[in-house]
Amino acid sequence: MEEQKRTNVNEYGEFGLIEHLTKSFENHQESTIKGVGDDAAVIAGDGDWLTVVSTDMLMEGIHFDLMYTPLKHLGHKAISVNVSDIYAMNGVPEQVTVSIAISNRFSVEALEELYEGIKVACKEYGVDLVGGDTTSSMKGLAISVTAIGKAHKQKITYRNTAKVGDIICITGNVGAAYLGLQLLEREKQIFLENPDVKPNLDDQDFLVGRQLKPRARKDMIALFEQNGVVPTSMIDISDGVASEVFHICKQSNVGAILEESGIPLHPKTEEMAFNFKMDPATVALSGGEDYELLFTIKEEDLEKVKYMPDIYIAGEIVEKEEGINLHTKGGNIHALKAQGWKHF
Amino acid sequence: MEEQKRTNVNEYGEFGLIEHLTKSFENHQESTIKGVGDDAAVIAGDGDWLTVVSTDMLMEGIHFDLMYTPLKHLGHKAISVNVSDIYAMNGVPEQVTVSIAISNRFSVEALEELYEGIKVACKEYGVDLVGGDTTSSMKGLAISVTAIGKAHKQKITYRNTAKVGDIICITGNVGAAYLGLQLLEREKQIFLENPDVKPNLDDQDFLVGRQLKPRARKDMIALFEQNGVVPTSMIDISDGVASEVFHICKQSNVGAILEESGIPLHPKTEEMAFNFKMDPATVALSGGEDYELLFTIKEEDLEKVKYMPDIYIAGEIVEKEEGINLHTKGGNIHALKAQGWKHF
Repeated sequence: MEEQKRTNVNEYGEFGLIEHLTKSFENHQESTIKGVGDDAAVIAGDGDWLTVVSTDMLMEGIHFDLMYTPLKHLGHKAISVNVSDIYAMNGVPEQVTVSIAISNRFSVEALEELYEGIKVACKEYGVDLVGGDTTSSMKGLAISVTAIGKAHKQKITYRNTAKVGDIICITGNVGAAYLGLQLLEREKQIFLENPDVKPNLDDQDFLVGRQLKPRARKDMIALFEQNGVVPTSMIDISDGVASEVFHICKQSNVGAILEESGIPLHPKTEEMAFNFKMDPATVALSGGEDYELLFTIKEEDLEKVKYMPDIYIAGEIVEKEEGINLHTKGGNIHALKAQGWKHF
Repeated sequence: MEEQKRTNVNEYGEFGLIEHLTKSFENHQESTIKGVGDDAAVIAGDGDWLTVVSTDMLMEGIHFDLMYTPLKHLGHKAISVNVSDIYAMNGVPEQVTVSIAISNRFSVEALEELYEGIKVACKEYGVDLVGGDTTSSMKGLAISVTAIGKAHKQKITYRNTAKVGDIICITGNVGAAYLGLQLLEREKQIFLENPDVKPNLDDQDFLVGRQLKPRARKDMIALFEQNGVVPTSMIDISDGVASEVFHICKQSNVGAILEESGIPLHPKTEEMAFNFKMDPATVALSGGEDYELLFTIKEEDLEKVKYMPDIYIAGEIVEKEEGINLHTKGGNIHALKAQGWKHF
């Protein structure tokens, strides 16, 4: 390939790039309700029910390292990260398709491991594997998953519908998956330098587990339903809290004030951040792959949310002009930086 | 990765492998109507309308060679091969998602070319690009497309519903895409041996075009509708006529007699087969990637089909016990061999 001009893709970043490449596309179908730009696409479905579709591609050497990723966990994670996008629309995933490309170093037994993980995840989330493709690759493993689900017209939750005065909430805890990855990478380096040293991950089940086998928050969607709460906007935390807040604010045309004290950190995450000499707040804000949910609610729903387990109040939506700021534990307020993971 | 036992994936082949890997999967959703095993998955939709979903992954070095594949054509083909699966269900595609993984050798300008082809195809087939993912790869380009469409409950066409006495039909012509590939590969080898020799593809637009820019048969689905024809079974010709007849027969639990004289070959395909010293019948039966449709109709629909352009009568469905045979132009009958392209 020869080109006159050569612009590096890094100049755009993942989100800018897809926006740039698809900006001149026009829609032709009445059934298309929401295209590129949210966790999932939205298509007209059965009456009040909308069809929600999300897709992701996981590449060996970029998204996972088979030196420390058991194939069973990888299969599970490939499903989890996709159904997470459906939950982030306040939807329920029902089907998945899985395509894999493999080099000749993969045996049938290795693929059985991968599909065992896919099967466990399908059972856990109640989704059916309905299609897919197996093919060869020149090098490495590629996994592409598409998740298809349903969301009710009155309850579907987009990224661009947060309003000034809404409360920002986060489920579970964040930053753990990122530190799990740091631990795995550290042990990998030690092993590569001296293969006789045994990996020392004995007490790190929690952090490593959060990286290798994240759980999408199916339970939260059920909780919303039971408690009559419809978030005003929602996104799943794949790139990090800061990055997700930026997405919500940019698309909703609002600002935000995030409370450092409100961002949920597991004690083990805090402890390990100190061990790594990292600022726990930075880990919490910029560490990705937790697959928790970040959402906003109307102020009047605050009472309901208070009684729901595992949800933390992390800030408030403000006027766009006020910007996107972090209120630190030390009492300072400064502009939030989005340093989400970029796979470029 | 270490395994006790190492079975090579070639022992299964593409279709056997996916069957083996997913055989223990159970379905949980009422909305799942048809899972793995047809051109597309089928999900309950809006009343009498079903949602049809198909997915495919194209890998550089396996499915395409960028030495002779313009990126614009590749983008177009990635969409065409997926919507072709929806047409093969007698459905109409409405949305697509496109995920790509790229190494750092791809510039923004190269991706613009790829997306230009995707855009042209979306317009041609009337589908909307509603989602996707761009990410990095360690090496090469990977493209994963999912197509979503609708088919009417009374008109959806599966692979497993051909009946004894049904007539086998083929649209357009076959074998051309395969010879187009042979031409491109031949010129590539000549170029690699002597970069000063200019490629000699001047009069080969037809064959090369069939390989680089196949057209899915959107027109046929409209023709079926206009003429009140509902095929009894259908499949698109991606792996070759013989292979597709085997799929229909295996899934419908029937046999077939294929007429060599009925398999449509373009004069240029016949001519080039002779140039390559290949048997045109073998090219027609085993050459893949034409993305024409192979379908069966009830005998009583024969009159209607005769007045429809570009449809050829190629054989008949018979009892399973009679096997799958080819009736040659020379008057012999012998067992058909399925030598579809395998990407393993």
